[in-house]
Amino acid sequence: MSAVHEATVLAGAPLAQEIREGVRRRIDALRARNVTPGLAVVTVGEPPSGNPYVRAKCRAAESLGARATVTRLPATIDEAGLREALHALGRDPATHGVILQLPLPAPLREERHLEDIPAEKDVDGVHPLNVGRWVNGLPAHRPATPLGVVALLRRHAGDLSGKRVVIVGRSRIVGRPLSVFLSERKEGLNATVTLCHSGTRDLASHTREADILVVAMGKRAAITADHVRPGAIVVDVGIHVVENPQPGGRKYEGDVDFESVRRVASAVTPVPGGVGPLTVAMLLSNLADAAERAAGAGPAA
Amino acid sequence: MSAVHEATVLAGAPLAQEIREGVRRRIDALRARNVTPGLAVVTVGEPPSGNPYVRAKCRAAESLGARATVTRLPATIDEAGLREALHALGRDPATHGVILQLPLPAPLREERHLEDIPAEKDVDGVHPLNVGRWVNGLPAHRPATPLGVVALLRRHAGDLSGKRVVIVGRSRIVGRPLSVFLSERKEGLNATVTLCHSGTRDLASHTREADILVVAMGKRAAITADHVRPGAIVVDVGIHVVENPQPGGRKYEGDVDFESVRRVASAVTPVPGGVGPLTVAMLLSNLADAAERAAGAGPAA
Repeated sequence: MSAVHEATVLAGAPLAQEIREGVRRRIDALRARNVTPGLAVVTVGEPPSGNPYVRAKCRAAESLGARATVTRLPATIDEAGLREALHALGRDPATHGVILQLPLPAPLREERHLEDIPAEKDVDGVHPLNVGRWVNGLPAHRPATPLGVVALLRRHAGDLSGKRVVIVGRSRIVGRPLSVFLSERKEGLNATVTLCHSGTRDLASHTREADILVVAMGKRAAITADHVRPGAIVVDVGIHVVENPQPGGRKYEGDVDFESVRRVASAVTPVPGGVGPLTVAMLLSNLADAAERAAGAGPAA
Repeated sequence: MSAVHEATVLAGAPLAQEIREGVRRRIDALRARNVTPGLAVVTVGEPPSGNPYVRAKCRAAESLGARATVTRLPATIDEAGLREALHALGRDPATHGVILQLPLPAPLREERHLEDIPAEKDVDGVHPLNVGRWVNGLPAHRPATPLGVVALLRRHAGDLSGKRVVIVGRSRIVGRPLSVFLSERKEGLNATVTLCHSGTRDLASHTREADILVVAMGKRAAITADHVRPGAIVVDVGIHVVENPQPGGRKYEGDVDFESVRRVASAVTPVPGGVGPLTVAMLLSNLADAAERAAGAGPAA
């Protein structure tokens, strides 16, 4: 009788903590020069109870010595009104990073606002000028979640050169940029990437080939042991709120069926506590880049 | 004894001719409004005999009624000098499209000049603002060669949705943009794409999975029958000059070993006469877009 195999659980918190400590030192140096990095989050039609993701970003920024403000716009605001609110933050010298919190309520459309935040304050890395620069391997703000996934994979798997990576999901902020970052011709990256999505036929035939499988589908527990090659590393970017009949309230699940996949994979990220903390840490790193650049110091954004 | 299988030869000229006829009509309409589309090609350190690719682009533009000019800069020009030459063409109202012919002689570096041509005149589709827009599925100048490959595949293979595409080569003007275009969530596209490159291990294990294989490696005859799944469609973007002992001078070969691959594939592009004519046709289409936009008419670039 063989022992039941169980994968390493890739918690993101320890690495996120290291990254945050580095950001804290950079913010301390900026504050010593009388520059306090300022993060502005814009929400549209936020419920009265607030948005837990927005709260998490603001708390994290403040915990490292940055300022954070939230601009709450009503769900009834029109395209021109949202544009003007973003432009105002773009002009504000005390604001170094601006986030437009997604999703937007209909009929607003995210792609109509991608150029409304100046590229240098676009800490989500979605302004076309930033996207075009990172696609070309040039310095630019890059989306935080794929930066976090790259950091976690580099820490856990070392050199990714020559690895077979399969990414499921082609979103603007996760799948697409991650496919670019991992296949860059750079030391430690240089992987061979397949980008799967809702139009992919026989998904498992692709995912079973992966040394590294990254799932950002937005579908609860869609990836099971049958999709995973024995020994693969599995990164779960999905997060879904699940009703929990037990006292204590909410429970979260990812796009990966954790209990089945952990018996096949060599390593798998948990939800929550996997990629999430790294996303926030990388966002704060982007904010420090932006503030340093505005102050004429440190790495260019 | 079975008959020897031979693939369909996918000549690009007929489709290129159709595209050029469409561009000709658009240029006629512009000229009727006293707008003559102007293409400017900048070469650095061109040999006295000239550059055949530059000649081909200019001749093609002129054959459709556009103007074409070549600015020949010496190989000794520095970064600032090249930048100023590009900026001057950017300011010239008679110039609607500007091409910086590659490769540049050392120590000049292409990536230092990607933003020196205004995005609206960047008919090669490499300015970061254009790249970021097409990555996001928005209207923008797109690189001509991958546009040509997409057109050829759509014509020959119809709906590409769900197809397995393998691209070999991750260049700025072919492999990388093609990987984005083919995996877009759009009618007729929506393919599952794997991007291989010089860091890929066991290349044939990837390419043999492809329904559609696009090769842009820059390595003569590197892809043989062993790399190709029986019945696959193979597109060869490479072009290499081969010494020809016969009278008549030069001979060309691609990245694909045509004679071996044609016995396995269902269809394969020849070199020359495959993708090349489509690249030129798509470049002219980009020029027409730019001139229409400058004239305040027709599709936006």
